[in-house]
Amino acid sequence: MDDPLDSLRVPGRVADPDEGVTLDEVGLAARNHGLPLELLRDDVTPPGLHYVLTHYDIPAVDPDGWRLTVDGAVDRPLDLDLASLAAMPRHTVHVTMECAGNGRAALHPRPLSQPWLTGAVGTADWTGVPLADLLADVGVADDAVDVVFTGLDHGIERGEEQDYQRGLPVSEALAGDVLVAYEMNGGPLPVQHGYPVRVVVPGWYGMGNVKWLTRISVATERFDGFQNRAYRLRQEASEEGEPVTRIEPRALLEPPGFPDFFTRARVVRPGTVGLRGRAWSGWAPVERVEVSTDDGATWQDAEVGPDRGRWAWRSFTATWQATPGEHRLRARAHDASGRVQPVDAAWNRGGFTNNADQGVRVVVADA
Amino acid sequence: MDDPLDSLRVPGRVADPDEGVTLDEVGLAARNHGLPLELLRDDVTPPGLHYVLTHYDIPAVDPDGWRLTVDGAVDRPLDLDLASLAAMPRHTVHVTMECAGNGRAALHPRPLSQPWLTGAVGTADWTGVPLADLLADVGVADDAVDVVFTGLDHGIERGEEQDYQRGLPVSEALAGDVLVAYEMNGGPLPVQHGYPVRVVVPGWYGMGNVKWLTRISVATERFDGFQNRAYRLRQEASEEGEPVTRIEPRALLEPPGFPDFFTRARVVRPGTVGLRGRAWSGWAPVERVEVSTDDGATWQDAEVGPDRGRWAWRSFTATWQATPGEHRLRARAHDASGRVQPVDAAWNRGGFTNNADQGVRVVVADA
Repeated sequence: MDDPLDSLRVPGRVADPDEGVTLDEVGLAARNHGLPLELLRDDVTPPGLHYVLTHYDIPAVDPDGWRLTVDGAVDRPLDLDLASLAAMPRHTVHVTMECAGNGRAALHPRPLSQPWLTGAVGTADWTGVPLADLLADVGVADDAVDVVFTGLDHGIERGEEQDYQRGLPVSEALAGDVLVAYEMNGGPLPVQHGYPVRVVVPGWYGMGNVKWLTRISVATERFDGFQNRAYRLRQEASEEGEPVTRIEPRALLEPPGFPDFFTRARVVRPGTVGLRGRAWSGWAPVERVEVSTDDGATWQDAEVGPDRGRWAWRSFTATWQATPGEHRLRARAHDASGRVQPVDAAWNRGGFTNNADQGVRVVVADA
Repeated sequence: MDDPLDSLRVPGRVADPDEGVTLDEVGLAARNHGLPLELLRDDVTPPGLHYVLTHYDIPAVDPDGWRLTVDGAVDRPLDLDLASLAAMPRHTVHVTMECAGNGRAALHPRPLSQPWLTGAVGTADWTGVPLADLLADVGVADDAVDVVFTGLDHGIERGEEQDYQRGLPVSEALAGDVLVAYEMNGGPLPVQHGYPVRVVVPGWYGMGNVKWLTRISVATERFDGFQNRAYRLRQEASEEGEPVTRIEPRALLEPPGFPDFFTRARVVRPGTVGLRGRAWSGWAPVERVEVSTDDGATWQDAEVGPDRGRWAWRSFTATWQATPGEHRLRARAHDASGRVQPVDAAWNRGGFTNNADQGVRVVVADA
């Protein structure tokens, strides 16, 4: 008898050149959600408007029964309940988180998956226990290579049944501000953000920020699970590819004026228009943001706002003398590592890390 | 000189027979969001997971500056601040709210707008002042016809610039449990649900539940604003059409087992499977729910759970002996008015009120 699961062992594919978005992609777009871009006005994104991407179902976790196991290549394995975790010294980090697939739907040809345009982002204050503290408590073996996080979300992907798991290099796990977080913006994690506990890896794309965390395992070999194989930059499926890691620089304009319902084109009155937005990079601080009001023909430097922490977006402002007619606004971020947003997207078949600016269509007209 | 706004004076259209979903529709799907169907497990939907459809931008409203004007054909116009509203007798209603466009993306041909499949729904406890109390305070004129609600959200649609406005027949406004609500599930309204104050019209599709409410005006003529003209059932754009009002009956299964990431097909182990779901109707109480595990060839009556109030969904359960292979599960609701979910969708060019069951694809396989 044939294995019924064969029908789900379907390789990923890329859209035909003129193929519209499929209902499978729309099903993902309806259950996940991006930041409505007008919310770029807020430095901290309210829960419910921060982007969410869930691979499987959102699990219902009983906080009283929840346990976190810390094991593997460690001296003193731990089994913690929520009260024990909350009793440890706490730390809050202000973090801009972005989905690695942000920008995917604007690629040509379009890889079939969650069809993000630009809104798969949000910024929150995450509070929890520094992962480095937890790892110090258990004592990591000298030959440790990866720290593997396991979530309680369970599903099947390309025929492979799995708990959601990601491995993070031990050097990344011990450095920086990686958190085992139990609060978002001062309240318990919303269920869709991993209640009761998740990982936050500041500066990395979302796939490393494992939600509904239940286990942290220290491994002495490179973790080769599904998600570490999936989130790689490849031109062909057969390539090994490069892993997706840190967030590429991006600037997004808060759309000015008011919107047309269907196209989201903006209507703006003629005259002096204040433009605002946010820019971020997981590689290095944002140093410069440029704005163009003529579809990239000319650029002006925006004024970059105060630094609100290494891992969060920075605001920027610019001024525009808007004249009647159609315009396309653009913005691009530069970071201190020398990275700058490209004009043309660098295509890869997973549709990852497309930080090319997509522009904002504006119609300037009198009332 | 041409009017730059002409480019936005584009009539609505219907997709070509084989036309995939457009990026304009995807842009709406990314900023709005539906209920992840596994959340049907909860009688009360957590904020952030309840469906949201916003025509324009989500406005940032200063609660200290907010005022509600009640005027028009009334004896004693009112101008209320938030404290005055909160000081009035309060009432809580448990309400299932659904977007009139739920099911649109499954229509053939597909009307171009927000491409909902089945998840544009949610249930919340809304608390506020009964609209009937407010209207009694101001004294409604005997010849009043409509009560017109105005939101602070502003945009352009088919070339028509507008504040979001809807008229509700005065008989509906005075009867039932219509609320001027300032709490959702015991907390302040989330910004995307209309903070600080919105209308809740239990039993009606979402378009009547005006968010970011700023004005209630009593009119002695039928209100003919854009949204009352847009939400109508038409075969041709030139028809007058019938207004969209109350929610048609629908049953949705909580998807069993665990999902395939991309297709959302479900994987279930062979054996006895408990099926659960929720069913609702804005016309009359749900009296009966049927479930099919063979794509509609045969049906069994589900057990319908307790009535949790006239305006909210009811749970249902059924049992399935799952055998290896592919299956399609279906559910359909009957209400006390005699309405039952259709097998084939009744098409209309706005893509409204499509309550045809869409089924759940399930692959039954051993571990």
